[in-house]
Amino acid sequence: MNYRIIIKVIGYILIIESLLLIPSFLIELYTKAGNALAFGITIILKLSIGFLLSRIRKGKSNISVREGLTIVSMTWISISLFGAIPLYLTRTTPTFVDAFFEMVSCFTATGATIIVDVENLSYGILFWRSFTQWIGGMGILLFTLAILPALGIGGFQLYKYESPGPISSKIVPRLKDTAKILYTIYIALTIIEIVLLKIGGMSFFDSVVYSFGTVGTGGYATKNNSVAYYDSTYIHMVIAIFMTLSAINFTNYYSLLKGKVKDFFRDEEMRLYLGIQTLAVIFIALNLYATTYDNLALAFRDSYFQSSSIMTTSGYFTVNYNLWTPFNKVILLALMLVGGSAGSTAGGIKVIRILVLFKIIKREVKKIFHPRAVLPVKINGKVISNETISSIHSFTAIYMIILVISVIIISLEGIDLWSSASSVIAMLSNIGVGFGDVGPSGAYTGFSQFSIFYFTILMLLGRLEFFTIFALIVPKKWSNE
Amino acid sequence: MNYRIIIKVIGYILIIESLLLIPSFLIELYTKAGNALAFGITIILKLSIGFLLSRIRKGKSNISVREGLTIVSMTWISISLFGAIPLYLTRTTPTFVDAFFEMVSCFTATGATIIVDVENLSYGILFWRSFTQWIGGMGILLFTLAILPALGIGGFQLYKYESPGPISSKIVPRLKDTAKILYTIYIALTIIEIVLLKIGGMSFFDSVVYSFGTVGTGGYATKNNSVAYYDSTYIHMVIAIFMTLSAINFTNYYSLLKGKVKDFFRDEEMRLYLGIQTLAVIFIALNLYATTYDNLALAFRDSYFQSSSIMTTSGYFTVNYNLWTPFNKVILLALMLVGGSAGSTAGGIKVIRILVLFKIIKREVKKIFHPRAVLPVKINGKVISNETISSIHSFTAIYMIILVISVIIISLEGIDLWSSASSVIAMLSNIGVGFGDVGPSGAYTGFSQFSIFYFTILMLLGRLEFFTIFALIVPKKWSNE
Repeated sequence: MNYRIIIKVIGYILIIESLLLIPSFLIELYTKAGNALAFGITIILKLSIGFLLSRIRKGKSNISVREGLTIVSMTWISISLFGAIPLYLTRTTPTFVDAFFEMVSCFTATGATIIVDVENLSYGILFWRSFTQWIGGMGILLFTLAILPALGIGGFQLYKYESPGPISSKIVPRLKDTAKILYTIYIALTIIEIVLLKIGGMSFFDSVVYSFGTVGTGGYATKNNSVAYYDSTYIHMVIAIFMTLSAINFTNYYSLLKGKVKDFFRDEEMRLYLGIQTLAVIFIALNLYATTYDNLALAFRDSYFQSSSIMTTSGYFTVNYNLWTPFNKVILLALMLVGGSAGSTAGGIKVIRILVLFKIIKREVKKIFHPRAVLPVKINGKVISNETISSIHSFTAIYMIILVISVIIISLEGIDLWSSASSVIAMLSNIGVGFGDVGPSGAYTGFSQFSIFYFTILMLLGRLEFFTIFALIVPKKWSNE
Repeated sequence: MNYRIIIKVIGYILIIESLLLIPSFLIELYTKAGNALAFGITIILKLSIGFLLSRIRKGKSNISVREGLTIVSMTWISISLFGAIPLYLTRTTPTFVDAFFEMVSCFTATGATIIVDVENLSYGILFWRSFTQWIGGMGILLFTLAILPALGIGGFQLYKYESPGPISSKIVPRLKDTAKILYTIYIALTIIEIVLLKIGGMSFFDSVVYSFGTVGTGGYATKNNSVAYYDSTYIHMVIAIFMTLSAINFTNYYSLLKGKVKDFFRDEEMRLYLGIQTLAVIFIALNLYATTYDNLALAFRDSYFQSSSIMTTSGYFTVNYNLWTPFNKVILLALMLVGGSAGSTAGGIKVIRILVLFKIIKREVKKIFHPRAVLPVKINGKVISNETISSIHSFTAIYMIILVISVIIISLEGIDLWSSASSVIAMLSNIGVGFGDVGPSGAYTGFSQFSIFYFTILMLLGRLEFFTIFALIVPKKWSNE
């Protein structure tokens, strides 16, 4: 293993992270909330360490798969470790384990929080959580695609394991250009939402935080009551629609921009994604209307907001859905498992995998009657390779096995099944909120330090889709190269 | 489709079922409980209908896959429909839907009951439930292997879809001989257990019922309190051990009988099965000792009984495990999903599939480093074909998808997550009992007729491993032959 190149990359990443801290530092200086020193110290610390590490001579230019994956994993871990320093220095969280949890939650765009009263946080801290979650949303590694080529490393191997979702459809031949296009869409969505929220009467700061939380599908808020704080159907709908938009495969928007409108609307994953969401919205709304709501339009509003928030793995809320009927809650729990589309900022098993699973089941039934027939599985008219099918199967199997084992482990806390199951899924699918103790009115404060650390690992596993982390820890002989 | 042959087979099966009713009829005559007439009428009804149907001329001898699968499914459905008649005539259950649920529960060896007070049932009814569950345990179709060859139908296609578990390892070339060997082992296990329970002080009748429930992994009892009624560690242990034995692949016992002791102990599925069970027993026992039990030995006794009962999908109980800690309950819930071994009477996803999934995940991680390597998956040294892997993947995917959708549907009852999740798994894995409303102290009486019927379908789907039923209902063009 070429450790030098890994350390060198981490050095560059720390330098970038120190630059990311500058806005929060300036906000603290301006608002005089008293945390400017903590941010200042962290910036200097990171700049110096980053500068030192980046000076290391890199040795050979080519990196192996194992090195590439180590860089991915170590980037997420180190950026969160260093990002946690200001939270710990300002005593925003009681322990460093908590601070690490919070930062991993940021960079994985999970949006789970250990902080009960966010309204008590300074603007600098609020911005730091929100900004890192926005950066994390699109993948810190995609962000660093500008550095890696500069290091003389072909980045595609990383891209393969980094980009959320199983099918890496290169839009344009050069990776750097792909990154630029995806980022442009990402930033454009964010700016449009900020403007729309500002028009709706939100403060500029809140508009930015909620837009970051929406487009990054993280779900961090400036209010303890999340979006419920705003008694405005307009604001609810803007956020709900932008959440839905943010969990669509971004390469699909590229088709749209290039004028391929048909391709956009024909995309099978998007159709299934919107189909599942629509069904959930209708069932929940009708059930709400049949049980507690007097107004069908309001039932649809709240049902759409919550379905969109949960399925896109954002985690915002406008009502305490913990009080909804078991039927509605189980639908939301199912949406937590499914998650959003591949190639978006959303987490979860992802719609494309569910789509492929359905097609494979259909093929399996056909095969009973035609045992010798070759029946390829196609998405959007293109044949899915056996390797991709195999990796999709393995992914879902791993997701389920880790889910079951983790619920057993978290049950040691003595909490009810809603809390244990939904907290684990909220971590693995990078949602943040769940039901019961970790529902809209709760936070992760009640858990032991062991569970908090365990949750942190689950967030990383979910965001990096298991294999990146697994490749780090497998026996050497498996990866003999 | 050759409907004649299907009807003819059902005719023969009805004749057999009418003969199976004779013991219950005699018991009713002997005990004078008043249900003899109901049994008598049913016997005559079935004999006449069966005789009429079996007279139909069969047309061509060869049956297609679709016809074979239709025979399998229709057999289970018709035998349960006709088997429900005495329950309905004697007013054992209030509605025919309930009676059908109870009989499907019998023939699928699920052991779920709609009857709250079983101690109030007549001996004839008790014996009918227990006996059909014992017959169902080994597969009614395996039982009818004596007829099908007589009809001039090669039975292997049926065997393939009938035998519980994905890998049909033909022990001996001729199917009839295979069936005979498996049945001999099945009957031997039953007789040994009856003797051991009788020695332990049980009445002969109870010994028979509990042995049928154990070896058939159904779990029907003569007492409302199941095995908890017997305050005897000896009886608890005999039943627990025989449950464990009954969920081991029966072909493995054949190896043992042939003196291949090494093959027996080296079987990878059995080792994983016993490994998972041992881990569960240890964790639960230690947790019981740490929380409520004073005596470690007692904690191990109850932990072993319950783990064995749940994992083998029997459903007996000696304690109200509803009162155990969430940690212990979630472990049991995980065991409900896993189930027993293939080629046994147990239900669930089955250990062999979990084993193959683990091996595929391992292969997937290796493939990251060796993308072009051919890495076959082996069980007991034999390569598993890609077709088998594909069908295992599809099975688990279907199990999970149906599980999620069914929990949503059952949640319409307004019950808690423990009850809805565990009742659905109890049906799909053919266990019978679950947690909450369907736990040790509960029955399926509280559910609507819609849910009861839905549960009935789930039991059939689980027992026939989905594809048999799916093949029945797929569009014609899929099966164009």
